[in-house]
Amino acid sequence: MLIVGELINASRKAIGEAISIQDAEAVKKVAIDQYEAGANFIDVNAGIFVGKESEYLQWLVTTVQEVVDAPCCLDSPDPAAIQAALSVHKGTAMINSISMEKARYDALIPVIAGTDLKVIALCMSDEGMPETAEQRLKIADRLINGLVQNNMKIDNIYVDPLVQPVATNKTFGIEFLKAVEAISTEFKGVHTMCGLSNISYGLPNRKFINQAFAVMAIAKGLDGLIINPLDKRIMANLITAEMLSGRDDYCSNYLRAYRSEKFEF
Amino acid sequence: MLIVGELINASRKAIGEAISIQDAEAVKKVAIDQYEAGANFIDVNAGIFVGKESEYLQWLVTTVQEVVDAPCCLDSPDPAAIQAALSVHKGTAMINSISMEKARYDALIPVIAGTDLKVIALCMSDEGMPETAEQRLKIADRLINGLVQNNMKIDNIYVDPLVQPVATNKTFGIEFLKAVEAISTEFKGVHTMCGLSNISYGLPNRKFINQAFAVMAIAKGLDGLIINPLDKRIMANLITAEMLSGRDDYCSNYLRAYRSEKFEF
Repeated sequence: MLIVGELINASRKAIGEAISIQDAEAVKKVAIDQYEAGANFIDVNAGIFVGKESEYLQWLVTTVQEVVDAPCCLDSPDPAAIQAALSVHKGTAMINSISMEKARYDALIPVIAGTDLKVIALCMSDEGMPETAEQRLKIADRLINGLVQNNMKIDNIYVDPLVQPVATNKTFGIEFLKAVEAISTEFKGVHTMCGLSNISYGLPNRKFINQAFAVMAIAKGLDGLIINPLDKRIMANLITAEMLSGRDDYCSNYLRAYRSEKFEF
Repeated sequence: MLIVGELINASRKAIGEAISIQDAEAVKKVAIDQYEAGANFIDVNAGIFVGKESEYLQWLVTTVQEVVDAPCCLDSPDPAAIQAALSVHKGTAMINSISMEKARYDALIPVIAGTDLKVIALCMSDEGMPETAEQRLKIADRLINGLVQNNMKIDNIYVDPLVQPVATNKTFGIEFLKAVEAISTEFKGVHTMCGLSNISYGLPNRKFINQAFAVMAIAKGLDGLIINPLDKRIMANLITAEMLSGRDDYCSNYLRAYRSEKFEF
């Protein structure tokens, strides 16, 4: 399970303020906390700063990598910001994200073509948000083909089937889950990942819903998540679901996590 | 989701004692509690009383149905005990369970053939316990064919693919989950159900594991569970997982359950 820590996002008030006053210590603390909690990648987002996104994204990467030995997940639709961040990034970054929206696709392909970068391929196109598993699969197919034709490795592609709120339409949960399974089955070697919070939009007790949805998605083959790794309950759920889906030899990861008392089982 | 309340089982000390001294009030209380918590069927088991199982199972059915307007799930491999219980049962009972073990199969078929009874069809044969999804599917196929040839309705068949401990073999969780999905897909109209506790045998924090496994199985299509309905946390998980798998119009069941404060979200 690949875990991307989502907390260094400028749309969160504390982070937005830290970025605007270049408070490196505040950013570093959140990076360290997430890394120690188990994040494999640290997401960095400076999207709210129009005109300064490239500069700030670069600063975030440098600041984060001064204290943690982990790659970043560069969270921007802007190829200029991505390139600025890549120019200072150590190790192999992840790009969050490309989609089949033409402007976004055409702008990002030249940046990532032929590289060893990992890329999140979001199932969205200019025809709008997909609702069914079938619609997601069609977009995933075009994205995967486009990326492979541009010399990206299958193993570096993380398809995000796009989570939509179950309160809007009762089929939105199960159609997403079906898409995860179909993508894992039909495109051998491709990964699937997602954020969780959209699923519970408009409902009470969102964390509980998000946890159950993550566990269900892992049962369907999901192998990456963009989450808050400081949430000890969601981490316990992921570790347990991984064990139950056959990914934990001798239950050793579960047992180690349980005994560590770092998580909330 | 069909919920069978599992608590009236003679192997539980309090129930075993209540049965042996014919303490009807104790049994009635557990029946009422489970029914009010959402059980659709009340499991009754008097298996520890060799030589008296028929008499006691009959007494349990009568006692339970004096206070709750729900059918029982008759939990015995002994056709004589099942028949004794059926002779006093009101409404349509569930039989727990038939299997492909020859002696059990041959003895139970005459009791249930041509009836409207619901039956749990356990994936077990004289060749032992199945380990892979494929082995489970083969037994399920023989069981379903046998039941249909004996004039049982498809809609009354609840296949239990047989949960085995993940601590014994890391594939036991995922092979069970694959079997649930394959049975739901290949035998349209057949239900799947199971108990949970075997999955976590030998591991710490069993309830947490059981909850995650239930949620994963629902993602794969499981639509019945034999559980303790007084466990407010597992019930909250089931209600949430049902919503996320497209079985809750307008999230109304989730919202009602959440507002009732009867469950632990």
